[in-house]
Amino acid sequence: MGFESADPGTIRPGGRTARVRAGVLRAAGDALAEQGFAHLDLADVARRAEVGKTTVYRRWGTLTGLVTDLLMDMAEQSLPRTETGSLLGDLKANARLVQRTLADVRQGALFKAVIAAATCDEKTAEALRRFYDIRVQEWAPCVQQAVERGELPEDTDTHEVIRAVSAPLYYRLLTTGDRLDEAAADQAAEAAVAAARAGAYRRSA
Amino acid sequence: MGFESADPGTIRPGGRTARVRAGVLRAAGDALAEQGFAHLDLADVARRAEVGKTTVYRRWGTLTGLVTDLLMDMAEQSLPRTETGSLLGDLKANARLVQRTLADVRQGALFKAVIAAATCDEKTAEALRRFYDIRVQEWAPCVQQAVERGELPEDTDTHEVIRAVSAPLYYRLLTTGDRLDEAAADQAAEAAVAAARAGAYRRSA
Repeated sequence: MGFESADPGTIRPGGRTARVRAGVLRAAGDALAEQGFAHLDLADVARRAEVGKTTVYRRWGTLTGLVTDLLMDMAEQSLPRTETGSLLGDLKANARLVQRTLADVRQGALFKAVIAAATCDEKTAEALRRFYDIRVQEWAPCVQQAVERGELPEDTDTHEVIRAVSAPLYYRLLTTGDRLDEAAADQAAEAAVAAARAGAYRRSA
Repeated sequence: MGFESADPGTIRPGGRTARVRAGVLRAAGDALAEQGFAHLDLADVARRAEVGKTTVYRRWGTLTGLVTDLLMDMAEQSLPRTETGSLLGDLKANARLVQRTLADVRQGALFKAVIAAATCDEKTAEALRRFYDIRVQEWAPCVQQAVERGELPEDTDTHEVIRAVSAPLYYRLLTTGDRLDEAAADQAAEAAVAAARAGAYRRSA
């Protein structure tokens, strides 16, 4: 494990309905990672999950509905934040989680596929925004704690600091193709801390 | 104008061959911005450009060939960097250029389409990386000048500072959907300067 989002459908309690959902979301993630959104097909997902086609159509209806549920599941399954006692330590933990996720073959391909889908589908874009909102809300308290310790200006936009850690890593994934290694993660965390200390993320700035 | 990349094919000297290329790239950009890469079609581009289909097939061959040429053209046509005399001034000018480009309806849609295409096509990804390399090389000297003025550590990775300005703006475009306004641009520039001053982009870091 150790990813920003656990592989969909791996740890999940519950009965048959929950197992079916887990299997279908796992299959949808596999299909997306392997073939991208353009080739996603509900019948293929049903086949991969060894579930009846009608079950998939009845429960998710559309590809967008399935991807939306997958993103919701990834947000639900994603790991709680790490607390290290220092802002830099916390943000490095966050950056490495994001970096490991994006550098992982399956998860990186999955995120690329969903982000590509979101560029041309408003509902997928909305589901993606919700996913990031949930992740940002999970991690923002570490920035708030730094504000309370007096390490950062009072009116720091805590959510913006968390987003600043992710931005250079996603930029590498999607545009420059530069290496997504631990050095990139640490640099992202260090840059965010330095900028936050200098007041770049103040709400009044 | 005022965009990171001038609209493809607007200012261009030369004879018929150059005019045909300009018209076809303009049409390809329009089609990409309106419909995305998945619906790009050489015959449709030829129709839009009022050019014979065979001309387009002979010259560009494939969709990927056409998008690669479009990106090369965007890089060639893009504006030279602004020199303001200060690092923050220069990076704000860079950030606002990127922000205006991504916030523009046609250009923003065009970049989304090309980035989405690059997630599933290696040649498009390569062309996209070349586009960013050219833009980064155009702007990196303003960071080098700041190093020479003693404003930044000697071993600052100048290219990484330029990429750091773009990253949060592209992150907004592609994932969070947050507003791409001048405040976002200025924040990106201020954060990059603060982080660079603190040594976050040192090669030895």
